[in-house]
Amino acid sequence: MSMGMNPASSLEKLKRVESSKLFQGAVIAIILLSALTIGAKTYNLPPLAEQVLGVLDTAITVFFLVEILFRFAVCPNKRRFFRDGWNLFDTIVVIGSLIPLDNSEAVLLGRLLRVFRVLRLVSVVPELRFLINSLLKAIPRMGYIALLMFIIFYIYAAMGSMFFARVDEKLWGDVAVSMLTLFRIATFEDWTDVMYATMDVHPMSWIYYVTFIFLAAFVFLNMMIGAILEVMGEEQNARAAQQAHDERDEIARQLRAVQEQLQELSRQVGNRRE
Amino acid sequence: MSMGMNPASSLEKLKRVESSKLFQGAVIAIILLSALTIGAKTYNLPPLAEQVLGVLDTAITVFFLVEILFRFAVCPNKRRFFRDGWNLFDTIVVIGSLIPLDNSEAVLLGRLLRVFRVLRLVSVVPELRFLINSLLKAIPRMGYIALLMFIIFYIYAAMGSMFFARVDEKLWGDVAVSMLTLFRIATFEDWTDVMYATMDVHPMSWIYYVTFIFLAAFVFLNMMIGAILEVMGEEQNARAAQQAHDERDEIARQLRAVQEQLQELSRQVGNRRE
Amino acid sequence: MSMGMNPASSLEKLKRVESSKLFQGAVIAIILLSALTIGAKTYNLPPLAEQVLGVLDTAITVFFLVEILFRFAVCPNKRRFFRDGWNLFDTIVVIGSLIPLDNSEAVLLGRLLRVFRVLRLVSVVPELRFLINSLLKAIPRMGYIALLMFIIFYIYAAMGSMFFARVDEKLWGDVAVSMLTLFRIATFEDWTDVMYATMDVHPMSWIYYVTFIFLAAFVFLNMMIGAILEVMGEEQNARAAQQAHDERDEIARQLRAVQEQLQELSRQVGNRRE
Amino acid sequence: MSMGMNPASSLEKLKRVESSKLFQGAVIAIILLSALTIGAKTYNLPPLAEQVLGVLDTAITVFFLVEILFRFAVCPNKRRFFRDGWNLFDTIVVIGSLIPLDNSEAVLLGRLLRVFRVLRLVSVVPELRFLINSLLKAIPRMGYIALLMFIIFYIYAAMGSMFFARVDEKLWGDVAVSMLTLFRIATFEDWTDVMYATMDVHPMSWIYYVTFIFLAAFVFLNMMIGAILEVMGEEQNARAAQQAHDERDEIARQLRAVQEQLQELSRQVGNRRE
Repeated sequence: MSMGMNPASSLEKLKRVESSKLFQGAVIAIILLSALTIGAKTYNLPPLAEQVLGVLDTAITVFFLVEILFRFAVCPNKRRFFRDGWNLFDTIVVIGSLIPLDNSEAVLLGRLLRVFRVLRLVSVVPELRFLINSLLKAIPRMGYIALLMFIIFYIYAAMGSMFFARVDEKLWGDVAVSMLTLFRIATFEDWTDVMYATMDVHPMSWIYYVTFIFLAAFVFLNMMIGAILEVMGEEQNARAAQQAHDERDEIARQLRAVQEQLQELSRQVGNRRE
Repeated sequence: MSMGMNPASSLEKLKRVESSKLFQGAVIAIILLSALTIGAKTYNLPPLAEQVLGVLDTAITVFFLVEILFRFAVCPNKRRFFRDGWNLFDTIVVIGSLIPLDNSEAVLLGRLLRVFRVLRLVSVVPELRFLINSLLKAIPRMGYIALLMFIIFYIYAAMGSMFFARVDEKLWGDVAVSMLTLFRIATFEDWTDVMYATMDVHPMSWIYYVTFIFLAAFVFLNMMIGAILEVMGEEQNARAAQQAHDERDEIARQLRAVQEQLQELSRQVGNRRE
Repeated sequence: MSMGMNPASSLEKLKRVESSKLFQGAVIAIILLSALTIGAKTYNLPPLAEQVLGVLDTAITVFFLVEILFRFAVCPNKRRFFRDGWNLFDTIVVIGSLIPLDNSEAVLLGRLLRVFRVLRLVSVVPELRFLINSLLKAIPRMGYIALLMFIIFYIYAAMGSMFFARVDEKLWGDVAVSMLTLFRIATFEDWTDVMYATMDVHPMSWIYYVTFIFLAAFVFLNMMIGAILEVMGEEQNARAAQQAHDERDEIARQLRAVQEQLQELSRQVGNRRE
Repeated sequence: MSMGMNPASSLEKLKRVESSKLFQGAVIAIILLSALTIGAKTYNLPPLAEQVLGVLDTAITVFFLVEILFRFAVCPNKRRFFRDGWNLFDTIVVIGSLIPLDNSEAVLLGRLLRVFRVLRLVSVVPELRFLINSLLKAIPRMGYIALLMFIIFYIYAAMGSMFFARVDEKLWGDVAVSMLTLFRIATFEDWTDVMYATMDVHPMSWIYYVTFIFLAAFVFLNMMIGAILEVMGEEQNARAAQQAHDERDEIARQLRAVQEQLQELSRQVGNRRE
């Protein structure tokens, strides 16, 4: 990479190229083309089309490699380049695509990384990057609720495999399988089939299902309400409240000025009196 | 259409007719009648009833044609008439209904356009028109979230048809079919049947389904919360905040007046002193 | 009912009885007993229990009759008694229960009205009555959205029975049956079974289902958001905003008083000057 | 337990041990280990692993016993120790674990109480304890809505078993079974299977299902909206509104001071005049 060694003036030129609408548009177009080739490969294609797709794949891989090297060259601080999660993600996907697809061992990984190329759209379009960042910020807020949900699932799964393992080994065989079954029940997916099967052996087992559904729905509902409230508390009224506070502050400041004027006046009148 | 050529006084009369409650009511009644005939045609009817429906259909078509020509005639600015999306929609539906139903080629289109006549109810009742307009305004706000959702669906669909195409050609055959299957999974519709089928071949494939459901639900939830917040930010507190701001402004104005009065008074007292 | 003819003093006594905690509690207890007998009748019971239930039923019917006559007697304005929807509902249920259960023709109606006795709990417990009233108030607010939803259902139902009637007569036979099928699809209930059946004949019919689900979900979501916002706009900030407005009003009033005082002072100073 | 009899200085030392990060971490680690052993027991294990789990179980039981005795010893007010619901819960779970697992009669209870050990995680991690407390606080707020929901379910269940008991004894046999069937319908789980079965006998029974779903969904929706509003009313704007109120109070106080100053000034000027 001798580009980084170029004098500053040509670096400036490269930077202008990188941030130009045309360059950005070209990158987005190639990503979309890449997504289309990935989709096209899932169809049964004539040999010629397969060959064209192979050539296209190589071309796209080379383009992405050149693009990432270019962006690296343009970046003024090479160390900070990889501190940005999006750059790191792009680099891994691009380097991963260099794995040759004939090697049968690594072919799956190579194809998977080619699929993740579509995610590069997120890293290139600023609005999507902003959206993902704000979604990521929403995760920790749900942390303890998720832990509580996991505890509920775990306890019900342990009870489920304790009581129902004999009824249906496939659904309640061990605690892991039971958690998957409970996840299914939490999505209301054919949960009565599971219930009626266990009710034939344990007639009161409907209590298990009904309490689980109530608990899961109740915790989920409260999580949602909590999330709405928290986001609102942070963003919603903050600006309006701040403006109102500033205006009231200004009024209070004016009032103090009035009081000072009055004191001054009072002093004047007092002076005259004496 | 010589109506549009009438002198202004008769145009005024026509306008008064068009905006009269009676005329509006008649149009709504005919639309409802049109909806009923569409519904009635889906039943097996005796030949006589079929004939009556045929005559009714012609009468309704003629009425709608006359009505739209009438509205066009009354409209003062002919060019702006078609700039209004609702007028354009009405015209297309009415003209489309003129296709004769015996022509077997176009019969389907003609019948479909007759169905869309029911939508004319929306264009006639102002409250519904307002509702649709406000729903349409809500679409762009969900644009980037929809794009993100599409990317998630596309990546999972590509992975799905890569891994599961051999398991069930009908569900995972290509990327388009896989996206339909994923849409089904996102509605929780018999998703465990799909999962158990692939788990027989790939025992760890539950990870695919659980992560997809979590991602889809999480993005959807955040979309909903975002929509609630955005609408609230725009409409909710706006009027109350404006009123509060105006009132505080008025208070600040009064205070300035007080300060001016005080300055004047201070000057007076000062004058007297000298 | 000669009770109403009693002198005022005994009417006062009766009123005190009616509004006493003991009387209210007794009525609630009898309603709960009535609910229990209704539930008990759904089990296979020994003949003795059946007889006991029959006697209980007669006793409860008589008690309710006496109670409603008593409430009517106590009511000071007989005309307004039946204007209250709750009283009217109670009277109909009680009079309906007088239909003898041996008459096989009316037995169904009689049994149904006995079931609705449980609803009398709502009319007796004030908190439930308040809740129902606030739920009823929420209905008109959803009126036009419901009409729009109906139009969407009707159009899709007409299209559905137009295209798919040959595929499955039971699901798409006519416009009414199609609307029931669409309601089922809107609840995501085995909608893919319906879709795959029609896709065998019309391969592109997935568009019909996916657009319908999107439309229904989108309108429903916006309806929910709208409802939340409307209720919030009405109830939520109203009191806080009113208090803030009142306090600002008070401040403005004080300011005007200050200005008047200043004018008075200014006049005084001016007078002295002359 | 002679620990409690130790002189105050050693009690202080014990307290410092109890509230140390290390001790808390050890308790959490042992609870997680306990959860893992509960999960491990649901798998088919070799005899050696079974023996190791048995020894681990005894060790964990002893540890929990020592830990609770230790916490009791450290607690300054022995009486208040059991008034805290979390301590009571811990004690019951720990004492219940002392039931020997060979006794076949009590083995089930003993194993269940071992499962509930996982819930001790909630009582140990303060964030989870806070979360559960806030969830518990949300329950009474939903009380009357839940009662109303129960009344709706009860009435529909009574009607259901009245009309449909002959159609499917297993689903509509008595009022209790009918309520379970209605709960299933409320989760949209294969509700059309139930409906189509009864529609073969009672063709109009779709009214029953559609009205029930509408009622249940409508009440649930309003419950959710109500919950959001109530929480918001309590927590959300309370602080901002209080601050605004305080600031306006301060302004009003300043204004009264201004008025007093003016009166004083007016009196001074008046005095001078005389």
